[in-house]
Amino acid sequence: MPSETIELRGHIIDSLILPKVLDEIIARGATFKIGEIRIGEQRTDQSFARIEVTAPDSDKLDELILRLRQHGAEVREKKSVQLAAAPADGVYPQGFYVTTNQQTFVRLEDGEIEVKPALMDSAIVVDPAAKTAQATKFYGIKKGMEVVVGHQGIRVVPLQRSTARTDIFEFMSSNVSIEKPKSAVIREMAREFKRSREEQGKILVVGGAAIVHTGAAGHFEKLIEWGYIQLLFAGNALAAHDIENALFGTSLGVNLEHGALTGQGTQNHMRAINAVRGAGGIKPAVASGLLKSGIMYSCVKNDVDFVLAGSIRDDSPLPDVITDAVEAQKAMRAKLEGVTITMMMGTRLHSIAVANLLPATVKTLCVDINPGVVAKLADRGTFQAVGLVTDIEPFLRELTDFIEADR
Amino acid sequence: MPSETIELRGHIIDSLILPKVLDEIIARGATFKIGEIRIGEQRTDQSFARIEVTAPDSDKLDELILRLRQHGAEVREKKSVQLAAAPADGVYPQGFYVTTNQQTFVRLEDGEIEVKPALMDSAIVVDPAAKTAQATKFYGIKKGMEVVVGHQGIRVVPLQRSTARTDIFEFMSSNVSIEKPKSAVIREMAREFKRSREEQGKILVVGGAAIVHTGAAGHFEKLIEWGYIQLLFAGNALAAHDIENALFGTSLGVNLEHGALTGQGTQNHMRAINAVRGAGGIKPAVASGLLKSGIMYSCVKNDVDFVLAGSIRDDSPLPDVITDAVEAQKAMRAKLEGVTITMMMGTRLHSIAVANLLPATVKTLCVDINPGVVAKLADRGTFQAVGLVTDIEPFLRELTDFIEADR
Amino acid sequence: MPSETIELRGHIIDSLILPKVLDEIIARGATFKIGEIRIGEQRTDQSFARIEVTAPDSDKLDELILRLRQHGAEVREKKSVQLAAAPADGVYPQGFYVTTNQQTFVRLEDGEIEVKPALMDSAIVVDPAAKTAQATKFYGIKKGMEVVVGHQGIRVVPLQRSTARTDIFEFMSSNVSIEKPKSAVIREMAREFKRSREEQGKILVVGGAAIVHTGAAGHFEKLIEWGYIQLLFAGNALAAHDIENALFGTSLGVNLEHGALTGQGTQNHMRAINAVRGAGGIKPAVASGLLKSGIMYSCVKNDVDFVLAGSIRDDSPLPDVITDAVEAQKAMRAKLEGVTITMMMGTRLHSIAVANLLPATVKTLCVDINPGVVAKLADRGTFQAVGLVTDIEPFLRELTDFIEADR
Amino acid sequence: MPSETIELRGHIIDSLILPKVLDEIIARGATFKIGEIRIGEQRTDQSFARIEVTAPDSDKLDELILRLRQHGAEVREKKSVQLAAAPADGVYPQGFYVTTNQQTFVRLEDGEIEVKPALMDSAIVVDPAAKTAQATKFYGIKKGMEVVVGHQGIRVVPLQRSTARTDIFEFMSSNVSIEKPKSAVIREMAREFKRSREEQGKILVVGGAAIVHTGAAGHFEKLIEWGYIQLLFAGNALAAHDIENALFGTSLGVNLEHGALTGQGTQNHMRAINAVRGAGGIKPAVASGLLKSGIMYSCVKNDVDFVLAGSIRDDSPLPDVITDAVEAQKAMRAKLEGVTITMMMGTRLHSIAVANLLPATVKTLCVDINPGVVAKLADRGTFQAVGLVTDIEPFLRELTDFIEADR
Repeated sequence: MPSETIELRGHIIDSLILPKVLDEIIARGATFKIGEIRIGEQRTDQSFARIEVTAPDSDKLDELILRLRQHGAEVREKKSVQLAAAPADGVYPQGFYVTTNQQTFVRLEDGEIEVKPALMDSAIVVDPAAKTAQATKFYGIKKGMEVVVGHQGIRVVPLQRSTARTDIFEFMSSNVSIEKPKSAVIREMAREFKRSREEQGKILVVGGAAIVHTGAAGHFEKLIEWGYIQLLFAGNALAAHDIENALFGTSLGVNLEHGALTGQGTQNHMRAINAVRGAGGIKPAVASGLLKSGIMYSCVKNDVDFVLAGSIRDDSPLPDVITDAVEAQKAMRAKLEGVTITMMMGTRLHSIAVANLLPATVKTLCVDINPGVVAKLADRGTFQAVGLVTDIEPFLRELTDFIEADR
Repeated sequence: MPSETIELRGHIIDSLILPKVLDEIIARGATFKIGEIRIGEQRTDQSFARIEVTAPDSDKLDELILRLRQHGAEVREKKSVQLAAAPADGVYPQGFYVTTNQQTFVRLEDGEIEVKPALMDSAIVVDPAAKTAQATKFYGIKKGMEVVVGHQGIRVVPLQRSTARTDIFEFMSSNVSIEKPKSAVIREMAREFKRSREEQGKILVVGGAAIVHTGAAGHFEKLIEWGYIQLLFAGNALAAHDIENALFGTSLGVNLEHGALTGQGTQNHMRAINAVRGAGGIKPAVASGLLKSGIMYSCVKNDVDFVLAGSIRDDSPLPDVITDAVEAQKAMRAKLEGVTITMMMGTRLHSIAVANLLPATVKTLCVDINPGVVAKLADRGTFQAVGLVTDIEPFLRELTDFIEADR
Repeated sequence: MPSETIELRGHIIDSLILPKVLDEIIARGATFKIGEIRIGEQRTDQSFARIEVTAPDSDKLDELILRLRQHGAEVREKKSVQLAAAPADGVYPQGFYVTTNQQTFVRLEDGEIEVKPALMDSAIVVDPAAKTAQATKFYGIKKGMEVVVGHQGIRVVPLQRSTARTDIFEFMSSNVSIEKPKSAVIREMAREFKRSREEQGKILVVGGAAIVHTGAAGHFEKLIEWGYIQLLFAGNALAAHDIENALFGTSLGVNLEHGALTGQGTQNHMRAINAVRGAGGIKPAVASGLLKSGIMYSCVKNDVDFVLAGSIRDDSPLPDVITDAVEAQKAMRAKLEGVTITMMMGTRLHSIAVANLLPATVKTLCVDINPGVVAKLADRGTFQAVGLVTDIEPFLRELTDFIEADR
Repeated sequence: MPSETIELRGHIIDSLILPKVLDEIIARGATFKIGEIRIGEQRTDQSFARIEVTAPDSDKLDELILRLRQHGAEVREKKSVQLAAAPADGVYPQGFYVTTNQQTFVRLEDGEIEVKPALMDSAIVVDPAAKTAQATKFYGIKKGMEVVVGHQGIRVVPLQRSTARTDIFEFMSSNVSIEKPKSAVIREMAREFKRSREEQGKILVVGGAAIVHTGAAGHFEKLIEWGYIQLLFAGNALAAHDIENALFGTSLGVNLEHGALTGQGTQNHMRAINAVRGAGGIKPAVASGLLKSGIMYSCVKNDVDFVLAGSIRDDSPLPDVITDAVEAQKAMRAKLEGVTITMMMGTRLHSIAVANLLPATVKTLCVDINPGVVAKLADRGTFQAVGLVTDIEPFLRELTDFIEADR
């Protein structure tokens, strides 16, 4: 029966990597023999294990090794990646390797190179001459590009829990808390925001129209003005409701000051969109003095970059909305460099979309009143996501208060 | 075919009573002829309609008239109620009339008397000599008591929308709002609370342990101290977690200050209950100096009456908990007189239980982060329930802030 | 004070139109005098009311009349619509009238013409020469087109409840039932489906990937084969998971036969998409023999038209997916003619999108295990939506069984 | 700094016990030195680790050791448990040990004895003479009883995953699946039921009124008749609705055959309860011929034992309902001996109550359409709970079909 020797390094015990690996081996009908195991005595020590894995046949062994690599296992004999040419534009070759959002290296003849960006569900295009390895979506593939096939020569470095417990994202892990006191967590978030800004990290907000509906726009605008937001990804709804509110004081016909239905239904909404269409877009509307307040106005005034992505649900998009999903993803991905924190609020659709684009290293905070949305986003198998099931307006109010108190 | 003439009075158009009545008649295969209709010109005017209803047979007519009475229809020929003796303790006679929680009158030989209390799903025990009519649960029935049977001689007066729109409970009706701005509603609630207190109305809180878990106990204690709460109905959980928090600073082992798990699990919880058991109850625990803070402490110190009702889920009740459900209901009902506002927060079980006990005239506010709970409670077919889907801690914080600003 | 006389006709009592109109008048500070009222004695009779409405000023009167029109009120003096030219491509003129999805007529000099299609949140482009009035989205507007402004000369005919109660869509109205017996409703749905097919009505399914995940694809394929589905609107997910299942027997790596995780994660998913990309699309993949089973295969084989609309969430779309939201909506709208029933299953995003496109006359059934989705879709203010909170697989199994038993 | 040596045995790697223990040690500021580690090579092999734990002070060490014991750690030096006398009836002594629902042993001078039953959140009463150790709730405590204090001499044996993967409860673990194919899981459940019956295990159903509302009573009755149910725990609602359905064909006034509202509201419900009250209870009602069908009838006819527990929500209990929560729990616990499978369906309240009473060894299946209920119940930290988010009627239909096919 074929066997191969793998090695595990790092915080393999307390990150549960070792047990997961052993479990995987057994669950797939293979066996293991532990050659050597050194367990770090201190939290800061690295552990090490060398394990010989034996499977019934080489296909099963290959499949198993592929899985173990995703847990961070390295195969001892170093082999180069295998490449095959893309058969047509937009088509991967047979047996292409599917990426995760973890840091990944491919081995060429003369050493390893890192795959960039750390983007999930892509193939890896290698240019051996230029020594680059690029995670590439279908639409980036041109006929003849060299694409990684199989799983030989690939090394994945899963995110490991840091040894210090100072970080709310590690402390909370994917803890979705409904009936928990949230003030302590929000205070920690305020500190994370501050730390991130001191280290020049970019903070991305993925936001839904609920920010406007719940009356939280004013808090959000403060964060923008204070320099805490560098990037906003949203749909047509957030922008259109924000502009409706700026122009008419309503959001889908609800007066945000008095909470009263004005009986205008979607009319103000349509008129707001029409006004911006007449002006030629959001920036021209700010320049011309049509738009004088609100989230989008603050973004323009404070040079916060934004991408508005269209959806099949938007029947009347603003001119700034990128209605093509693939183009909108490209626009988003082009701006992700340098993002260290992503705060997702009140949008299931855009949050999942952006989560698909983020590398595992970006810290993610998801705030929604729907526990299903929070669970779906916070539970993505990394140490870096915190979910809060709560109302957006009081959340942003409290976050803003903590940040203000600490400025 | 048998027919009967009914009359409708009041705001029968804008309370939708007339169309509901006509609809009911047609839907049950009966026909109607409108004898007279006078529609109030002004909002403050009463309307009137006299309608002759004809049904295929007298059984169907009876059943229909029964339904129409529940919409407020009066039958023109006045007949006295029919009574039958209860056949045994705890058993109603055949054909007993089932009450609603609307104001109801029964006609005796010499005039009408009001049924008290306005309690749903009961039978009516009449004492012709004493001229009393009492809504009575099974357990209040003694053999031989005179109980109303059939539906003759009964008049129901459904709650009608007042003509002024100053009242949040009428303005909102059963509007369950997730993505709405809540500040305006909470500000209105603060005004309602103030108004109720000025008019000597009692405010009842039905509360769950989420008040403590979410860190909202401090806000609640302020409301108690300021005299805004006269009555608290809860389960073992609210009291036990509150006392755990007062004694150990945790709620089910979660440190409420730092949001951190102490790793004590249910231990502090059990020790808190044991300590109160040792003291002989909550009041002795306050008297002895064991219990020095928290919601229950504030209740004792400010003479807020409380009923703690047991549940099959509580495996370790405090000594103050009434573990028998029937006894607990009796204790609650005995204290409901004079209650004008009920605020239900964070408990599905106790909120439904109390909703079953309340007359239709009590204004009800239901706050929960679970939209299903709010929908179930806010949508009980009266004009008097407001539901808010939101987090309890920020809700109570904002309510307290509004009340404080206005003191 | 200015006044105007309106008339109401039809089932204005049992459709609650009269009380809504009176309520609206009073709520907006106007007064009314009922000139004449004739209430139909029988369910099949039409009722009639003539009401003089007086408002404080003509602006308020105009706004009120606009609202009353949406309840079906007609203004007695007949005036023609007012038109204004679109100032630029994609921009409506100031004061444009916003459509609903109800049947609407505009009055020209020489009579009324119907607005087509009955599409909400559009403006109305009138061609007086050709005597056409077309509901037109922003992107259909060219500079200079004549667009209806104000609300004069517009008549809306709200959908009225039919007099017979044979129709499940009227019987249920927007009843969202979790804890109700569903077999009776599903049996009625089977009958509606049969009736619709006998009358050559088209049945549209809006479907999410949950149809595949829950193992319901086989039932759905039967409906297609038996000729019960004419149109399928979906996203990339439904098609991609269906094809993954057809090629690999898994859906996102879950073996649908054994319910077991294969540990392949998203790999099979990516390989399925790649295979279809290699083939050049779904139809070529069927033609070439690559795709031999599944929902998409059945659609191709049975000439069921489909539109796959992209979403920002899809990072790897099939070639058949229309990634531009506006183009996808156009493609959908072009196929809606003749649709009498829409069945929405397991997709919030696409269901809301399609609901925005449907005229009020299309009967809509929404099936989802999430009560929030069902409530949002079933409660759209018409008599024609039924919501079922249930699991898709057993729902489709039972629906298919009823239809089969009755074939 | 004080230290102690602990030992871990069993499937400590693949049950994740070792990493949890190491993690706990570090997280609490203690350090460890691994003296010996032997990892089982085969899935069936036991592993072993001896670890020296050092903490800053002996209080911290004690607290840590207490936690480690709950992960199954044994302390090497064997000491006897410490006992203290209960200071009063119903009160534990200071420092009492709080039980889990795992198998637990206490060490006396002359050896270990097992604590019975395995009941969480109790204290342990030891009778050294009789050599018994009993988990005892507050109400079982009499003044002077010897109760375990501290954590010395206590050994907890956590449930370990079996080495075979034939068991659905281990295979699924706490997997709550909404969008998964459920047929495979239900088929496995049918097999588990059969296996349990062959081994004379008792099957307990904890059921809510949704079984009746959703029209699933017929399926449930089949399971009873075929001998698959030995015990039913429910509230007043299940029994009252079942009997309403048996006597009147409705459930809260909804006709279960036609799904139509009969307009009787709660009347039939009240009349059904009154009829049983008149008969003197459920068994007399069956004996007298009043009750001739339904779930409760089948229970009586097939000698299925039942406990109906009251709730503050029940305003009109059947005479069989135990309205006192403590008495109802006693009645339930007295019948749990021999139960191997518990199926919880459609009741949050009673399911949580029963979950509190069950030892960790009982396999639990929780079926509910509300994912929150399923998550709460399935995620209780054992390997033995399976949650299904689905509709009860089709679930029971399919389960019954599988069992029938296999009889």
